[in-house]
Amino acid sequence: MSIKEVASNRSFGGWQKVYQHESLGAEIKKCPALYYLSGLTCTEQNVVTKGGTQGPAAKNGIVVITPDTSPRGCNIEGENDSYDFGSGAGFYVNATEDKWKTNYRMFAYVTKELPQVIRANFGDKVDGDKMSIFGHSTKLYNFTLLISLPSSFKTSLKCLVWTSPLIISAFAPITNPIQCPWGQKALKGYLGDNIEDHKEYDSCELVKKYKGPVLDILIDQGTNDEFLKRELFPDHFQTACADAGVKLNLRLQEGYDHSYYFMSSFMEDHINHHAKYLNA
Amino acid sequence: MSIKEVASNRSFGGWQKVYQHESLGAEIKKCPALYYLSGLTCTEQNVVTKGGTQGPAAKNGIVVITPDTSPRGCNIEGENDSYDFGSGAGFYVNATEDKWKTNYRMFAYVTKELPQVIRANFGDKVDGDKMSIFGHSTKLYNFTLLISLPSSFKTSLKCLVWTSPLIISAFAPITNPIQCPWGQKALKGYLGDNIEDHKEYDSCELVKKYKGPVLDILIDQGTNDEFLKRELFPDHFQTACADAGVKLNLRLQEGYDHSYYFMSSFMEDHINHHAKYLNA
Repeated sequence: MSIKEVASNRSFGGWQKVYQHESLGAEIKKCPALYYLSGLTCTEQNVVTKGGTQGPAAKNGIVVITPDTSPRGCNIEGENDSYDFGSGAGFYVNATEDKWKTNYRMFAYVTKELPQVIRANFGDKVDGDKMSIFGHSTKLYNFTLLISLPSSFKTSLKCLVWTSPLIISAFAPITNPIQCPWGQKALKGYLGDNIEDHKEYDSCELVKKYKGPVLDILIDQGTNDEFLKRELFPDHFQTACADAGVKLNLRLQEGYDHSYYFMSSFMEDHINHHAKYLNA
Repeated sequence: MSIKEVASNRSFGGWQKVYQHESLGAEIKKCPALYYLSGLTCTEQNVVTKGGTQGPAAKNGIVVITPDTSPRGCNIEGENDSYDFGSGAGFYVNATEDKWKTNYRMFAYVTKELPQVIRANFGDKVDGDKMSIFGHSTKLYNFTLLISLPSSFKTSLKCLVWTSPLIISAFAPITNPIQCPWGQKALKGYLGDNIEDHKEYDSCELVKKYKGPVLDILIDQGTNDEFLKRELFPDHFQTACADAGVKLNLRLQEGYDHSYYFMSSFMEDHINHHAKYLNA
């Protein structure tokens, strides 16, 4: 598992580094850190340059790991045709449709392979036995991913140790992808037509049957977010959490939009939210 | 004096806005705010997206004004040929060479015209009667500009009220442009061959004859800055300040380079440095 440092900059008393590695599809062992999942059209650079993670992370002694959002350079016909599907829009699902299923396995990548790469290459730097995850955007199912992580890891892999309660946070997430245009397009494209398969990546559906550790969820949502009423539906998720008895702190932030100006404004709150458990 | 809002995003409880306006060359009156001057190749967007100004500015109740770094679209032959001269590299001088002198008057723009535009359009928002200025980079003479501001404003314009002591700060500035390749190229190109003209934009030369309000200068300089030994020479400036009895806090930051990762790491310190006087 080779890994190559492609950039290194001192930042807030720590280091902002970018590494490149081949994706192979391997097993994992436990890996403590705070993972950050970016949104549609992003690479790892968006949050690195605009998210304001470095200062709060340095203050709390946390390593923030920010993977790219999709496979690149797979030479799949049409992979670069849409901003909301294909390259830059992996949506963190394990695709099952023939055209995509070999490469577009971002759920497996983020939950299994990436932590293994981190552990194999940074075992001396990424310490502790707790990890946590958060993300930004309407545009990906990162929130779905978060919700589905505990069962995924705890039951099938038994190799990652999560905090308890399990801390999750998100900025303006898609919460109900089976109900929104972005979600329907991506789920159908990557998974085919079976709605039951789609539900495996829908936070509202998943929270209903959630059986993992106690959840402590923080969501910030701008009230002027241009995607709020078309794609995001935090109210759907709020209802689902209430029905399921899951703790959700949904904060509606007056006047904020969907940009990094919004997200970076509350980055410190989110990192502190994770840190209180990661550093407990 | 028309002004057009081209972007508006809520950020850290305030607003991150971008305005476009024609440069006309007018008089100014006093205008309180914290001006930020970016470096070579930058537009106003670099610091807006990567500088981390919004949080510290919001905490301190300060408006940070970040102009573009040079004229754009002047259709001067060769203006886009170099990264370190012409478009994106105005160097905040008033050019005297025929080819450049009509448009490349960034010193006058920043010290006279821009504050007037701010005052005319944001008189209800930019309050108080104090202003201050700081900047980033080797790549511009912003530090020179800062040093020369008091005499420029106080003696010839009598219309801007600066803090006393006069607060100046910079990240990794060129301090002695008559001695470095970037400086020599730009000064010769914009001003011609007379070294005496060049000295009017050299901080080390200017501090020797400084007669303005008491100065309180903060400089952060990364020790791994790739331009440190070729272009920056903070040691030259340190000596010049000591000889002139000017207060300088030069902080050498171990391992930091010349990037926004460096600059944003110390942004809060710099804004606090200005705020203690602006809010006094």
